[in-house]
Amino acid sequence: MFFVNSEPARTECTSIRSGGETKGKYMSGLDFLVAVAQMRPKPQDVHHNLKKNLRLIEQARTRGAKMVVFPELCVSAYLLGDRWEDKSFIRELENANEVIRKASTDLVVVWGSVKADWDKIGEDGRVRKYNAAFIAQNGEWVSNGVLNGWIPKTNMPEYRFFDDPRHFYSAMKLAAEMDISLEELLRPFLVTIDGRIVRLAVPVCEDLWSDEYHTKPSLIYKKHGVDLVIDISHSPWTSDKWKARDKMLHKRALEVDTPILYVNAVGLQNNAKNLIWFDGGSCLIGADGKMCWMGSLNREKFSCINLAELLKKSKVFKHAESIAESHAATIAAMRDFYRDFKRVVIGLSGGIDSAVSLAMHVEALGEGRVLAVNMPTQFNSKTTVYLAALCAKNFGVEYRSVPIQEQYEALLQLLKQAGYPNPSDFDRQNIQARIRGQVLADISACEASRIGGRCGFTCNGNKTEIALNYFTLYGDGAGCSAFFADYWKGDMYTLARFINGCARRDIIPEGIIGLPPSAELSSTQNVDDGKGDPIFYPFHDNVLKMFIERRWDPTDILALRVDGSLEREFGLLPGEIEKYFPTHTAFVDSLEWAWRQYSYEGKRHMLPSGFIRTRRAFGYDRRETIADGYFTEAYKKLRDEYLRQTP
Amino acid sequence: MFFVNSEPARTECTSIRSGGETKGKYMSGLDFLVAVAQMRPKPQDVHHNLKKNLRLIEQARTRGAKMVVFPELCVSAYLLGDRWEDKSFIRELENANEVIRKASTDLVVVWGSVKADWDKIGEDGRVRKYNAAFIAQNGEWVSNGVLNGWIPKTNMPEYRFFDDPRHFYSAMKLAAEMDISLEELLRPFLVTIDGRIVRLAVPVCEDLWSDEYHTKPSLIYKKHGVDLVIDISHSPWTSDKWKARDKMLHKRALEVDTPILYVNAVGLQNNAKNLIWFDGGSCLIGADGKMCWMGSLNREKFSCINLAELLKKSKVFKHAESIAESHAATIAAMRDFYRDFKRVVIGLSGGIDSAVSLAMHVEALGEGRVLAVNMPTQFNSKTTVYLAALCAKNFGVEYRSVPIQEQYEALLQLLKQAGYPNPSDFDRQNIQARIRGQVLADISACEASRIGGRCGFTCNGNKTEIALNYFTLYGDGAGCSAFFADYWKGDMYTLARFINGCARRDIIPEGIIGLPPSAELSSTQNVDDGKGDPIFYPFHDNVLKMFIERRWDPTDILALRVDGSLEREFGLLPGEIEKYFPTHTAFVDSLEWAWRQYSYEGKRHMLPSGFIRTRRAFGYDRRETIADGYFTEAYKKLRDEYLRQTP
Repeated sequence: MFFVNSEPARTECTSIRSGGETKGKYMSGLDFLVAVAQMRPKPQDVHHNLKKNLRLIEQARTRGAKMVVFPELCVSAYLLGDRWEDKSFIRELENANEVIRKASTDLVVVWGSVKADWDKIGEDGRVRKYNAAFIAQNGEWVSNGVLNGWIPKTNMPEYRFFDDPRHFYSAMKLAAEMDISLEELLRPFLVTIDGRIVRLAVPVCEDLWSDEYHTKPSLIYKKHGVDLVIDISHSPWTSDKWKARDKMLHKRALEVDTPILYVNAVGLQNNAKNLIWFDGGSCLIGADGKMCWMGSLNREKFSCINLAELLKKSKVFKHAESIAESHAATIAAMRDFYRDFKRVVIGLSGGIDSAVSLAMHVEALGEGRVLAVNMPTQFNSKTTVYLAALCAKNFGVEYRSVPIQEQYEALLQLLKQAGYPNPSDFDRQNIQARIRGQVLADISACEASRIGGRCGFTCNGNKTEIALNYFTLYGDGAGCSAFFADYWKGDMYTLARFINGCARRDIIPEGIIGLPPSAELSSTQNVDDGKGDPIFYPFHDNVLKMFIERRWDPTDILALRVDGSLEREFGLLPGEIEKYFPTHTAFVDSLEWAWRQYSYEGKRHMLPSGFIRTRRAFGYDRRETIADGYFTEAYKKLRDEYLRQTP
Repeated sequence: MFFVNSEPARTECTSIRSGGETKGKYMSGLDFLVAVAQMRPKPQDVHHNLKKNLRLIEQARTRGAKMVVFPELCVSAYLLGDRWEDKSFIRELENANEVIRKASTDLVVVWGSVKADWDKIGEDGRVRKYNAAFIAQNGEWVSNGVLNGWIPKTNMPEYRFFDDPRHFYSAMKLAAEMDISLEELLRPFLVTIDGRIVRLAVPVCEDLWSDEYHTKPSLIYKKHGVDLVIDISHSPWTSDKWKARDKMLHKRALEVDTPILYVNAVGLQNNAKNLIWFDGGSCLIGADGKMCWMGSLNREKFSCINLAELLKKSKVFKHAESIAESHAATIAAMRDFYRDFKRVVIGLSGGIDSAVSLAMHVEALGEGRVLAVNMPTQFNSKTTVYLAALCAKNFGVEYRSVPIQEQYEALLQLLKQAGYPNPSDFDRQNIQARIRGQVLADISACEASRIGGRCGFTCNGNKTEIALNYFTLYGDGAGCSAFFADYWKGDMYTLARFINGCARRDIIPEGIIGLPPSAELSSTQNVDDGKGDPIFYPFHDNVLKMFIERRWDPTDILALRVDGSLEREFGLLPGEIEKYFPTHTAFVDSLEWAWRQYSYEGKRHMLPSGFIRTRRAFGYDRRETIADGYFTEAYKKLRDEYLRQTP
């Protein structure tokens, strides 16, 4: 078993989270133990989660804590699609809230859950619900003078995979209906701890991410005056997002001029189109905006901390960056995703994607839970077949060779009988890919029966291939999960090198890293002849990234090409683009092809759930529509000018 | 070629849309011709749509109209997913708005499009956009004293497949930011027609569907006083929705005490998870809430109408209901969906679903564009093979028999070599289904090459099977569209009888309608022995309908069973449920199985886009999450009591 440290990588790397002296003025009022329950709610399982809530409250009391804080929506989890519409489920949550209130003997409990207003309707015409912070002490609800024991979320995210206003009524709308100001509604909650009154503001997640909102709860807290802001969150991980999070908390603490205790959830949530990882990272920020304490990343953690002690001095926290951070989060998410799986089947081709997939699944699950299957036809080179076997051996996993040449020929025979004696080269490629999809599905079903437990097979597709529709539906586009759907092709190489670096040897054979990327579905893709995919990955990765993350269209790319700055923008060598595209026509053709493929959703909406890593992934993160790639008048004008020039 | 009239079925059926005398007070001010452009915008194709806008404006002028009205978002279409984030696309739309303004010589043009505020951001952090009504006359923007030529939508739908606030900033938020009241912002637009001033209110679609909203534009219009409300819409069809639409317009006209001209779009829009049909049905309602004119249903239509003339007297409009209405909308949507397809392949099993699918595809596309393929194994009875051939013959389509027994045996052989000598009966069933999916994909690809045009194959799955996950991924769950995904199994029989009724013969063979539903994938499903699916459709259709439409959970069903009213609620015969489930345990087991399957999204999120017919369909209409079926404490208590009783 090789190893990569996928535990909180905070101490390994170089980036620094603030540090220095801090103010003492709040310390006396906050000189008590707070239990930070960075928990993993099991999606929708109120029964399971409530038991955990109660156990942790008991634990907090035993350890002498005067307050225990849970994340937003900790009894239900967050990304539950339209389950929020089920009335029985909401009643179950409300019952759980009562149970938690009653359990708050001798301490303050702050948690996130749902409040329903059974006599009113939301804008969807159903029972009105609030995504709310709850606060109870000694078995009683704590009031802020307006609401008794709860306060709804103010800012409702509705971008990316968030749908808060679809389900929940905001504090702003409630205030409008009550005919009071938001300021009035957001009065602090006063609790007495060790004989001292502590004024608490309890925003819910997005309430503090207020830059884009007209409503700014932090400014209201400042007006009221509070001793502590407790931000209960359900904030998902994406690569390098911690930088934005730290910056946001820094700004908000300065705005309120008060320390912020940030409590986030952890775990994987799956909205059926995307696998979304919550990374925890609960922390304490001083009134000067500096970080004073940080909990664990990527795992459940129960921490008892003395706020006043920690606020005396800010500290330096190191945080993993780029590929190490992504690797750690992906491994943690895999462990969560496959917790009920006994085994996973990976189609191992001898190429880079399936090798990295194998490496990471082995890291996450252990070699005994991974089965590698190689399925060659006449078009697979001895080179890749050898490399696949070597790779499986290096990782110590069971490896089976299941040649599909006979199936392929039998299918060609069947098509001949059905009236198609000569399928095109393109059709033949897809036929092979679909046979592989079928065989993996069959093997994983049979394996599940054999071992008497769940078994699935992976889709190893990367983001570049998915963006370009360079995959076969029901073929390499099939599987139970797509953990690399948000890694560009270039990232797959970076991952491979990172993994080999951690293992201190070529555990992923160097031959795999050195081969030209190839689907090996046709004699035109023979890797031994140096042939492969019709994609220039260093170029296309960048083009597609601009399309999806910056919402550029071909006009923006072509404009940079015209003014000569595209290679610099993409981090390519001078002259590199000309090497790929010797003529203007070739460049334009490829750009338009990429735009058309990127815009065409007809295939990718049937892919398995894809793990989210970047600022924008395919799936529910970037909502789809079926409409062909559209070229604006501005683009056509620029293109025509460009094509009139030589070369 | 058999025929079913799929043109506007309004005159065929019995339901009546209002009727009677109306008031004359507005007539003099509205005595001019208005061109109602009930258009089909091609999703995202600004170039195409703008040309149509200009052509229709020209046509309106030629016919002497003083005003031309287009639907909401008529230059872009509506359900464009995240394409709204593409800045180039928004600029193209803004350019189009300028072109339309300039084209408004000698008349008033009212249309829906997007307005951007390039200096501001929306709550998603991107350029701020408004879904707005635009109004221009004689080449100039018409002002309402606050905004010049445009007004944003106030009520932003965010239920079902709507995502307005994800993309657009509402009038309410804009008013808050401008520090004026919504009332001030929604002042009427004054235009002069034939020397008379006409005060116009121009709500956008949901603005009038205000029952669930705190903001009620109609009450504001009433305060201001207006002569005409023009409701530009992009309102999708669902079965019997016209009743709610008529009722809503009736109420709003009375509230404003002014006639309403309702202009809706037509056509199919595809968000990659659902096929959504817009049915038009533009109409004119008098100030007394009665219908005075109705345009076409289910097709593009340009109508020039004199408002004053039509408002003199309300009329009676008949409207198709239930299955006739669904049939007409589905056929119209199919024609739109397949407009670029040369041919479609249908796997024809001899069962009810594929027979109805064949009938309707032939009705929509003509028999020459449909190819039927039967793919028997040892488990398919001679009965169904015969019925499939007969059905294809009745409809006059090309029919091919492509037995897959050899493929099936070869695959079992391959699995044996791979280490699985004895796949379970369940696994064998899925293997056959997946081979069929593969063969259909291969045939439709080869057929596309042969005919030199697009070709796809259909997924014929019905809503009951999908709700119960009673289908095979990459097998019968594969295809380019799923037009029956929102028809319950019972509806498939109703459709078959309706089709045969229209054809006045058993064009769908009675043998198909009489057979027990069966997947025929195992000897346990032999139709000749009267065996079939393990589903009691009359019961399960109802259970699942309650789950998805009313958001019931098993508690609600079981409570009705306990008090003896479930059969009445479901329209079943007394004693029917006991026939299906002789014991309490059998009933509970089946109920829990249905709930678990309904709650499990692991398969259905990979289905092709499904056509929407009911109040709630699977796909993007009902947003998914992966979480096992959850049983509440209340349910478990009730169940335990029920099980303690006999039988």
